[in-house]
Amino acid sequence: MRIPLDHKSNIPLYQQIEDHLRKSILSGNLPADTRLPASRQLASDLGVNRTTVENAYSALEAEGLVFSKMGSGTYVLPVYPIPSIPKNNSDVLPLWQMNLQKNVFATSDTAEDMLQASGHPHPINFASGISDARQFPVEEFRKVIQSVMRRDQIDALEYGERRGYAPLREGIARILASQGLQTHPENILITAGSQQAIFLASQVLLKPNDIVLVEDPTYSAALDLFRTLGFQIVGIPVDSQGMQVEKLETLLQQYHPKLIYTIPNFHNPTGTCLSSARRRELILLAGKYNVPILEDDFVGDLRYEGHTQPSLKSLDPGGQVVYISTFSKMLMPGLRVGFIVADGPVYDSLLNFKRLSDLATSTLIQRSLDAYMTVGRYQTYLHRSNQIFRARRDAMVNAIKKYLPRSVNYEVPKGGLFIWLQVPKSISANELLPIACKEGVAFSPGNAFFIDGISGEDWIRLNFASQPVEDIEEGIKRLGAALKKIKPKKK
Amino acid sequence: MRIPLDHKSNIPLYQQIEDHLRKSILSGNLPADTRLPASRQLASDLGVNRTTVENAYSALEAEGLVFSKMGSGTYVLPVYPIPSIPKNNSDVLPLWQMNLQKNVFATSDTAEDMLQASGHPHPINFASGISDARQFPVEEFRKVIQSVMRRDQIDALEYGERRGYAPLREGIARILASQGLQTHPENILITAGSQQAIFLASQVLLKPNDIVLVEDPTYSAALDLFRTLGFQIVGIPVDSQGMQVEKLETLLQQYHPKLIYTIPNFHNPTGTCLSSARRRELILLAGKYNVPILEDDFVGDLRYEGHTQPSLKSLDPGGQVVYISTFSKMLMPGLRVGFIVADGPVYDSLLNFKRLSDLATSTLIQRSLDAYMTVGRYQTYLHRSNQIFRARRDAMVNAIKKYLPRSVNYEVPKGGLFIWLQVPKSISANELLPIACKEGVAFSPGNAFFIDGISGEDWIRLNFASQPVEDIEEGIKRLGAALKKIKPKKK
Repeated sequence: MRIPLDHKSNIPLYQQIEDHLRKSILSGNLPADTRLPASRQLASDLGVNRTTVENAYSALEAEGLVFSKMGSGTYVLPVYPIPSIPKNNSDVLPLWQMNLQKNVFATSDTAEDMLQASGHPHPINFASGISDARQFPVEEFRKVIQSVMRRDQIDALEYGERRGYAPLREGIARILASQGLQTHPENILITAGSQQAIFLASQVLLKPNDIVLVEDPTYSAALDLFRTLGFQIVGIPVDSQGMQVEKLETLLQQYHPKLIYTIPNFHNPTGTCLSSARRRELILLAGKYNVPILEDDFVGDLRYEGHTQPSLKSLDPGGQVVYISTFSKMLMPGLRVGFIVADGPVYDSLLNFKRLSDLATSTLIQRSLDAYMTVGRYQTYLHRSNQIFRARRDAMVNAIKKYLPRSVNYEVPKGGLFIWLQVPKSISANELLPIACKEGVAFSPGNAFFIDGISGEDWIRLNFASQPVEDIEEGIKRLGAALKKIKPKKK
Repeated sequence: MRIPLDHKSNIPLYQQIEDHLRKSILSGNLPADTRLPASRQLASDLGVNRTTVENAYSALEAEGLVFSKMGSGTYVLPVYPIPSIPKNNSDVLPLWQMNLQKNVFATSDTAEDMLQASGHPHPINFASGISDARQFPVEEFRKVIQSVMRRDQIDALEYGERRGYAPLREGIARILASQGLQTHPENILITAGSQQAIFLASQVLLKPNDIVLVEDPTYSAALDLFRTLGFQIVGIPVDSQGMQVEKLETLLQQYHPKLIYTIPNFHNPTGTCLSSARRRELILLAGKYNVPILEDDFVGDLRYEGHTQPSLKSLDPGGQVVYISTFSKMLMPGLRVGFIVADGPVYDSLLNFKRLSDLATSTLIQRSLDAYMTVGRYQTYLHRSNQIFRARRDAMVNAIKKYLPRSVNYEVPKGGLFIWLQVPKSISANELLPIACKEGVAFSPGNAFFIDGISGEDWIRLNFASQPVEDIEEGIKRLGAALKKIKPKKK
């Protein structure tokens, strides 16, 4: 085979070979099943190093243009064109497809998408629901994955135990014990993040048209989930001490809900914590009216000041509370590892539903997390995260005082990720968002967190934990600029 | 600190130090928050290498007994006792828990558990639903994960795209194109294995009490799923050419099903392939009666002889078929990566439901799979797998001829993982199983695959792909011995 090579070119020799072969394959000059010359042979023909040819072949193989059969040689693959446009042609769609669209709800990505679309050279996103992944020691975790794969070999990649990797469940039990929640590893179920935990619990505990009681406002993806599954949603208002439990009994009598979904610590979106007295009252009432509690403790240990409250699960007289939490928010969203703590038959129902929905969560990630996440390391990491996020919260509070009008309302949260802020009544957060995005900053408009999707038009959720201090000041400054530009909404 | 060391002992020095410190911590002699001596100091006190002390400290940290604060030292952690028994005390359980148990169906693990419990020194399991993980090049994959983490850093651990990692979807589109299925990456949705794909599709397309039409027998976990979700299941019989499509129209008219779930290639459990003529007829009828088809192609490319049939999706005039497949069966179960191919509004509904059920599938595994799985490597791997599994199928067929009575019935499958075998009518497979397990071999009794859970009592499913050739011969020999021992069932 002759390949013209330019030894004086800036293009490396292997790439010249690669480019020439690619052209020949794509043009059809080298048809499928052609055996390429052995690398030793071609290297000698071209007067280059054998490695040069091998590099060219590897690159072509990675592209899917050739493949090497062990002990036989390298062959040209057929060129399979991928259709250039997605297939969504509604002309030919069957009737049953037409009824599906109504089930799709707006996603909460809108703010981030709008920010990206603004084309600002340095966009600052306060709309995120997660903490700062850049804090995570990737390099350390890479080494942990390595040692786990070296240690466990094929076991690291097989189906694992249904409940989740046993040593990880034991580690979680120890971490929970250090937070005052006594539980046995057999009562822990590993899930694909806390979203799956909420999903499993609501599927197991409710049927379509059943009523679920939630704080209003609450986590928007939980609302989306409950709506999609066809549940009726009833709200209970929130004040600076969390859910207004005084109003609970009337609602329980009136609506007979099948589930109470609550975020008692650093509530999403308001950042409030349920008081101890209300926690005890909530447990009592749920017991009296025979309603399960789903306790979402997504960032319960991200506390920057004040005292920890007992989790509802730790106050549970037995089997009343299903507790969920996650490593995703604090550690790494992409790990997709959360867990449920439950006892009684509901545990087996959850386990069964987990099996039916995806069999099991990736064992490699579970084993790596186990190897990484000792109680000590967890506490060290938590300590560091708390320091960083407290500084960011303070930076945001200071920037709000400096750059936003005095007419905004908010309370300083004692932990978690969010500041929940009321803009002047005359302003619509949804109208403010595109203007803010043009300035280079995004937030979550408040109405997505309300059951009716309409209330909270003058509220916004700001994530202070996901950005470095300098971006927080700049971002709030931009928000102040946007607030100056917006016209008051028409009454 | 004084630690008595025995330099002549077989126990390494670091472990002696570790053991001594562990006892001191667990006994309370070293209470929480005690600062351990600096490793340099203790090494000098004990006259050992500094690394020896560091190894002991690391081991204690991994156990959660101490933790090291950067730049400050190593501290004893409080000892948090984990409760010694799971909490499932039904005395104190609330009423709502009592209604849950009826929803839990028997799992298909029974056979493997029974085999393990038999205590046989070399158990042979033909009951598995997956291929042989030991074929997977773990070491190569470990290196791929390494290079992906080095390349992508934190991106490898963040939430990824909703649809799944774009280059992986493109790679899948190329692999599918090489199999004759033209699809665009935007029409592919990555899922946590094919179990999640079936789960998402059935949740999006059916409501409780809706009717789903399935081959009878069919994949037992799909049956479990449909039962748990409250669907009505109607069966259509299977012969050596797959689903008896001639009977379909009557059933469509009679039951108005909302979904046809089918495994056209190497059907689970029967191993049959749907004929080309029936494939075309199935598509026509589904179109005529406006019913979506869920095509489960879990091992479609594991073909050992004969010609590939077109997938139903490739015959789809547009939006009629939702196609699902997986890398789990052929490559690695624990990777938990499957995918859906769909077009039209159903794609968006699936995407939305995926988001609500677990947000996204682990990006690290997706990126690693993408880096590993070029078209060329896939074809090489497939080629090798097919050779290995064909030899195992042949070994099982030969062993059946040699060791089982002539009265057994089966057809030799042209691909896939299973031989579906009828034992003599007088024998119950469920009574045979414990006897076989005592001999050291397990299989899946047939009735789990039937809609009524009762039919198929004289059928068993044997997985030939998961065991090496020598174990296959030995396992079938044991099955023959069990068949000789069992008494015919009472009429």
